[in-house]
Amino acid sequence: MNHLNIRKIIKEALNEDLFAGDITSESIFDKDFEVSGTFIAKDHGIIAGLPVIIEVFKELSSGIVCSPLVSDGTLAIPGTKIATIIGPVKPILAGERVALNFIQHLSGIATYTYEIVQLVKDYPVKIVDTRKTTPGLRALQKYAVRQGGGFNHRFNLSDAVLIKDNHIAACGSITEAINRCRKYIPHTMRIEVEVETEEQVKEALAAKADIIMLDNMDPAQMKKMVELIDHQAIVEASGNVNKNNIVAIAASGVDIISIGALTHSVKALDISLDVLI
Amino acid sequence: MNHLNIRKIIKEALNEDLFAGDITSESIFDKDFEVSGTFIAKDHGIIAGLPVIIEVFKELSSGIVCSPLVSDGTLAIPGTKIATIIGPVKPILAGERVALNFIQHLSGIATYTYEIVQLVKDYPVKIVDTRKTTPGLRALQKYAVRQGGGFNHRFNLSDAVLIKDNHIAACGSITEAINRCRKYIPHTMRIEVEVETEEQVKEALAAKADIIMLDNMDPAQMKKMVELIDHQAIVEASGNVNKNNIVAIAASGVDIISIGALTHSVKALDISLDVLI
Amino acid sequence: MNHLNIRKIIKEALNEDLFAGDITSESIFDKDFEVSGTFIAKDHGIIAGLPVIIEVFKELSSGIVCSPLVSDGTLAIPGTKIATIIGPVKPILAGERVALNFIQHLSGIATYTYEIVQLVKDYPVKIVDTRKTTPGLRALQKYAVRQGGGFNHRFNLSDAVLIKDNHIAACGSITEAINRCRKYIPHTMRIEVEVETEEQVKEALAAKADIIMLDNMDPAQMKKMVELIDHQAIVEASGNVNKNNIVAIAASGVDIISIGALTHSVKALDISLDVLI
Amino acid sequence: MNHLNIRKIIKEALNEDLFAGDITSESIFDKDFEVSGTFIAKDHGIIAGLPVIIEVFKELSSGIVCSPLVSDGTLAIPGTKIATIIGPVKPILAGERVALNFIQHLSGIATYTYEIVQLVKDYPVKIVDTRKTTPGLRALQKYAVRQGGGFNHRFNLSDAVLIKDNHIAACGSITEAINRCRKYIPHTMRIEVEVETEEQVKEALAAKADIIMLDNMDPAQMKKMVELIDHQAIVEASGNVNKNNIVAIAASGVDIISIGALTHSVKALDISLDVLI
Amino acid sequence: MNHLNIRKIIKEALNEDLFAGDITSESIFDKDFEVSGTFIAKDHGIIAGLPVIIEVFKELSSGIVCSPLVSDGTLAIPGTKIATIIGPVKPILAGERVALNFIQHLSGIATYTYEIVQLVKDYPVKIVDTRKTTPGLRALQKYAVRQGGGFNHRFNLSDAVLIKDNHIAACGSITEAINRCRKYIPHTMRIEVEVETEEQVKEALAAKADIIMLDNMDPAQMKKMVELIDHQAIVEASGNVNKNNIVAIAASGVDIISIGALTHSVKALDISLDVLI
Amino acid sequence: MNHLNIRKIIKEALNEDLFAGDITSESIFDKDFEVSGTFIAKDHGIIAGLPVIIEVFKELSSGIVCSPLVSDGTLAIPGTKIATIIGPVKPILAGERVALNFIQHLSGIATYTYEIVQLVKDYPVKIVDTRKTTPGLRALQKYAVRQGGGFNHRFNLSDAVLIKDNHIAACGSITEAINRCRKYIPHTMRIEVEVETEEQVKEALAAKADIIMLDNMDPAQMKKMVELIDHQAIVEASGNVNKNNIVAIAASGVDIISIGALTHSVKALDISLDVLI
Repeated sequence: MNHLNIRKIIKEALNEDLFAGDITSESIFDKDFEVSGTFIAKDHGIIAGLPVIIEVFKELSSGIVCSPLVSDGTLAIPGTKIATIIGPVKPILAGERVALNFIQHLSGIATYTYEIVQLVKDYPVKIVDTRKTTPGLRALQKYAVRQGGGFNHRFNLSDAVLIKDNHIAACGSITEAINRCRKYIPHTMRIEVEVETEEQVKEALAAKADIIMLDNMDPAQMKKMVELIDHQAIVEASGNVNKNNIVAIAASGVDIISIGALTHSVKALDISLDVLI
Repeated sequence: MNHLNIRKIIKEALNEDLFAGDITSESIFDKDFEVSGTFIAKDHGIIAGLPVIIEVFKELSSGIVCSPLVSDGTLAIPGTKIATIIGPVKPILAGERVALNFIQHLSGIATYTYEIVQLVKDYPVKIVDTRKTTPGLRALQKYAVRQGGGFNHRFNLSDAVLIKDNHIAACGSITEAINRCRKYIPHTMRIEVEVETEEQVKEALAAKADIIMLDNMDPAQMKKMVELIDHQAIVEASGNVNKNNIVAIAASGVDIISIGALTHSVKALDISLDVLI
Repeated sequence: MNHLNIRKIIKEALNEDLFAGDITSESIFDKDFEVSGTFIAKDHGIIAGLPVIIEVFKELSSGIVCSPLVSDGTLAIPGTKIATIIGPVKPILAGERVALNFIQHLSGIATYTYEIVQLVKDYPVKIVDTRKTTPGLRALQKYAVRQGGGFNHRFNLSDAVLIKDNHIAACGSITEAINRCRKYIPHTMRIEVEVETEEQVKEALAAKADIIMLDNMDPAQMKKMVELIDHQAIVEASGNVNKNNIVAIAASGVDIISIGALTHSVKALDISLDVLI
Repeated sequence: MNHLNIRKIIKEALNEDLFAGDITSESIFDKDFEVSGTFIAKDHGIIAGLPVIIEVFKELSSGIVCSPLVSDGTLAIPGTKIATIIGPVKPILAGERVALNFIQHLSGIATYTYEIVQLVKDYPVKIVDTRKTTPGLRALQKYAVRQGGGFNHRFNLSDAVLIKDNHIAACGSITEAINRCRKYIPHTMRIEVEVETEEQVKEALAAKADIIMLDNMDPAQMKKMVELIDHQAIVEASGNVNKNNIVAIAASGVDIISIGALTHSVKALDISLDVLI
Repeated sequence: MNHLNIRKIIKEALNEDLFAGDITSESIFDKDFEVSGTFIAKDHGIIAGLPVIIEVFKELSSGIVCSPLVSDGTLAIPGTKIATIIGPVKPILAGERVALNFIQHLSGIATYTYEIVQLVKDYPVKIVDTRKTTPGLRALQKYAVRQGGGFNHRFNLSDAVLIKDNHIAACGSITEAINRCRKYIPHTMRIEVEVETEEQVKEALAAKADIIMLDNMDPAQMKKMVELIDHQAIVEASGNVNKNNIVAIAASGVDIISIGALTHSVKALDISLDVLI
Repeated sequence: MNHLNIRKIIKEALNEDLFAGDITSESIFDKDFEVSGTFIAKDHGIIAGLPVIIEVFKELSSGIVCSPLVSDGTLAIPGTKIATIIGPVKPILAGERVALNFIQHLSGIATYTYEIVQLVKDYPVKIVDTRKTTPGLRALQKYAVRQGGGFNHRFNLSDAVLIKDNHIAACGSITEAINRCRKYIPHTMRIEVEVETEEQVKEALAAKADIIMLDNMDPAQMKKMVELIDHQAIVEASGNVNKNNIVAIAASGVDIISIGALTHSVKALDISLDVLI
């Protein structure tokens, strides 16, 4: 993670929620006395985002000490204490909601990733995310996927080539599309091609694609393609993957399964901050 | 909506995904020929975010025309065409994912809100959101809630008072907490108090709270409190509201039901952009 | 106050004045030796802005210690020492003008507010500001109004409804305007209507406006309206309020008097920084 | 003026006032119908800021046409129409307050400057501003001073040398201070020295200061210094200049009179926007 | 290229040079009359940066039309007209220096890259840049390298793995370092290892490094390593490459030669803007 | 230098290189153990930029201590140790490239400036830079010129007047151009005129230009002009100055020689960071 970038995201989030200040706390607390509190999991799940909540409170006051009791990637159960906090009451209450919004969201991603990963743990397959992320939070969401045992796909349009139907149509063939990319891109980058038919797989192989993405095939088709490809390219399965069909997909022998829902449909993990006044 | 703010959020999202440019399209397309496309719903749901996707493409190229075919708040079915787009191929493909990430997320919020609102449509109750939003997207998420037929709670810590257990503890009593706020806040603002017991309801009423939030009460208790309050304050129900218990809560006579899940646990609505090359 | 926002305003102000650096000090001082200084009031007035000047110097050097001797809201007389400063000479001189520009401006607002508040101190009326603020400084100016004993009106266009003549004209009636707002806005927000006639007051009351703003009425009319409204709504007087007519207005029984001049026409309070080299 | 910088200041001001949107207009106006309006002076004064209000509305909507009827620097009387506006109702009302806040403030500065300039119009003296400006608005305030017939002093700490008592104390003498600066600064820059005594004037002259600032001298002393300096340096009078003493100061023969109050104590010029619905 | 990012860089550059405005032009030109001009190469070289200068002037005025006469990548000779410009005099002169600073710098990079590429044009080798770029300009500099016929290495620390001596030391072996990376990184990314000895080459090959960087070897050693590697990995030569030794390096059979000087030591190409008044 | 501005430039540079994080170090280092290192010059040259690299690492981690062993302006030889660093391995490696990019670039400028200054050290002439700087880095580049013994010309278009051929053409004469500027600009600013002929020199002198820039004259002509001007104005030589002709130019008696190449054509000074793991 790039902490400079995370801090910028946190500042935006705090400004969004604080705006002109916490009118309730300003009315209520005449002095800024010390309080302490505990972040507690209320449900089963994987914790992700502890460095983020530490930064949230650091941004608000140098007088707050927020100390993790577990590390990101830990499997929590209801009641697991995940961090303590101590410091002046006003900035702690001012940051409470933003901190919880971050850690509940990221832990939700880590938890769902973990559940998926567990389903296929007996297969040599990697679960990866996609670019279907929440605008502004991609770096954090991809971090959360890793905490849940998943891996990352390309970060953005700049750091890997993914040739899709529109690109192929514009070039006339997969071969031409791959050749054009090879002539342009850094040698540090791989080329992935999205294919829908056996014929396309063969063309991609012949053109030396590094990664072949099987788009919306059924597990039987995938198995056949895996055999055809025979380790000459990395094989990625994609499209409508869910808890019901993922084991069959993994069993087909693909190397990678990418799942948009890891980040586009997130159920927050229930975590609370109990403050003692 | 404040379009200046929305544009800033869009720019961040585009920079996150484009970074140094779309390496695949730069390799493939030697000229920037024109293409056209259609945004199509793939599932049942309420559309929200059309002004956002228009701004996404406006930011990328003045040569793109993106025209909505429906308006936000429309109930789409699989196959509903929601917008057309025409313009140069490179910026259209460059913006595709970001545009979809926005509209799928916001339509997901609008759809879930709509489903909740439909469940209680026979009761004179408003469904409202909370501050449990995704960091950086609160303005857009609250807009989406309105498109689904919901209403907004306070936007942030600055624009309304919400007295919670910690504030009450620090003051010694609800009465004192309300009095301190009344002496400090603008006259344009209301004071809401979160209560857990009948005794607290009575104290809040006596202290002339504008809004009383019943926290985690069961519908029977709520009904009793509604009768007790008897229109002297607005009554809001809060805490673990879901599709199973919401009708009972609505039937208790409360004015407002607030639901964090509207924005903290979002399932993206499936929408695609079909581009013709 | 939201300190993140204040820090951003301070950075802009420092960059405006420092630009490429303090060319005089860079020429003169070969070493960055320690100096000490004192902020001293040169006139009678209310001090506001001490937390701001502390942040100004903190932004410039972690080696500067700026310690308030009084707190914001204090009535100073010529010669009152309001803060001391000690630290390296270059950043102290670099920040001097910006710090003084802030505290003189904010203390000017607090002082004028205090003078107004004193005039009506025998009446149960609140003096409030408006949105007629200096662009970029609203949060600080509204803070200064509070230090002078005043209160704040709405912060911006988002956090309260104020229905004016144009809105009424577009709707056809006050009743319709209020109804449209009630259907749209958060339940935490109040609705204020600006009225010019008795008839309008009656319509606003019937439509259950929360606040009625009497625009440019004379004290006699105001008194009549206050009796008519009879505590069914908060009554705000507005328009050309000055030191000559404010007592008469307060005597009319209104709850609130709003005054644009608190922030749009500010006379800086004379404060100096005496540095000892 | 640097329009890029002005646009940034305008965006900040609009975000400050709009935040999450204009809740009243969003409630009231279902369609964004066209309206027209006129900016009208309500008092005597010099108009300054027309390019700013044009940019304010351009930022809000490309559909608004705001057309000046006079140019900045014009002497308006009550009733002078200064600009017309036509376009969609929502962005016009959304920008109204911000536009007025800018033009009233800047016209207030231009007006006061003009009044001062008129007082000394029979003397070959220039009225200039200082760095005692409102944080964030220096570029605009200095522009307004020019519209009122005044001139600008240095813009900031980077673009001219001004040697003050602290610098002299650190160097041991004016001569040494000037020499150190001369060895460091660009040849495009002048050196100004602030002096309090005849002896200091002589030393500054001997050290070839380009500008000598007479600090807080009375007009008689100033006259003597002007004769002593005898056009070997530019002579600037500074300190507690006001409408009562300025003619005497001008009569002393100084070249420049600098006045902090031009920008630190501003009375807004009354200007309104009359919109026709 | 990501135009949003380029525009941000351009704005910073314009603000740096314009600051409070072009004081000379504001003094001189009372009206903003039209002028025309031509950008002309004064030396032999490859042009790069035309889209940038178009954006510079677009940012300053919508009234300026800047039209390229050649495209980036063109080999210019002294006198080659590369673009015309027509529009209002003030923004054209205001943008002149910034536009030239960009295009002279980028064309300097493209020209030097082209000279290098020409030297080895008979060998199947790619000339690539490094991360030794000018802070803030990496995207533009890497674009300029491509215009000169070069290719890009990784853009930053995020988009490819490059294992260096420190990483190997921390892991104990190249094998362990590669394995740790393989377990962490996206499958779209390649792993490069920097090696200094034959033994390290063998270990890197065995550990299936995608790219092997030969650091500071002489051409004879390189030839031996190329034979050893035998197309099982991409071979990159790096370290003190210059015009004298590059042909020998290319002749060794390496696939890639990376050269920091392409971007860290840039001689601007002489280009002028001739304006006709 | 304005450290706030420098910090902003550093943040941009770090974000450019770190983006989503240092993928190699994140893979390799499981713990963030301490390392130490030394910045060492690899070539002869003047060091410039030590305060910048200190800020780079401060931005990345408060746990890093970076201590200069020499001060900026020092003449280093191959092997000169210029700074030590100690702290956690990850942020040190993350900042290494950015720190080196800054200090190598700035030291390259200081070194070239120093070489030029040495050539003319027997003449009472100042070597100054121009506005031909690398976009975004002007403040730092001008700082580096000073470390090499050079001086700065104006910083930007706002802080001094430079009348060129286009301005003269628009005014009809140098006299008119100077007069227009004198009526507009602050009294703290000097007026420089660029001239090409003896006639123009005479006109500029008569119009009391403060500085006369001799554009592209040969040393003999310059000498004649210097005699003609006879200390009534500062004389600046400009245009195609290089190591071959600079001594002759200096010998002509001009006060100032400005050289674009100081900043537009920079050869990085070779400096490395040796880290001990």
